[in-house]
Amino acid sequence: MTDDTICPRYETAMSILGKKWTGLLLLILLEGPKRFSELRRSIPGLSDRLLSQRLKDLEYMRIVNRIVTHSTPVVIHYELTEKGRDLEPAITAIQAWAEEWC
Amino acid sequence: MTDDTICPRYETAMSILGKKWTGLLLLILLEGPKRFSELRRSIPGLSDRLLSQRLKDLEYMRIVNRIVTHSTPVVIHYELTEKGRDLEPAITAIQAWAEEWC
Repeated sequence: MTDDTICPRYETAMSILGKKWTGLLLLILLEGPKRFSELRRSIPGLSDRLLSQRLKDLEYMRIVNRIVTHSTPVVIHYELTEKGRDLEPAITAIQAWAEEWC
Repeated sequence: MTDDTICPRYETAMSILGKKWTGLLLLILLEGPKRFSELRRSIPGLSDRLLSQRLKDLEYMRIVNRIVTHSTPVVIHYELTEKGRDLEPAITAIQAWAEEWC
């Protein structure tokens, strides 16, 4: 990279990670698969509607998989894909910086 | 961190790093101190007014120092503080992920 060129992919990544609540969601999903209700309980400020929207966005970007288990009742989990798990170094680096400086 | 608690500092950090253009600005400043005109040239899509605003935000958060050299004409540089330089692992991790996946 020189002064005159810049990687547009960084901007794309930040438009994902920088969206309100998405970072928190990913931090929680890095612990392992979660149900919708578990995610909601982890982020008290987040409405059902917005959580649902964020999960759909992350599914669309293939960062999160929605796993349906056909039991009675049907159980739905959300888990990170490989692309999602690969975010761990970025997310933990951001978190480490935040712990030190924010 | 457990399912039921979450570090609010992550959110604070992301509200900084996730702001449009800020990540790119930081990437460029990691190369070393830059003048306003150099920063502007590096990001063609960014207006003077918005660049100025972003730099003020980063100064306010003590991520960037504004260095005035009292020569003729006066020369102004922007450089990362220690807090700003400490963002390097986070920014390079985000960039690496973006290169791989975006």
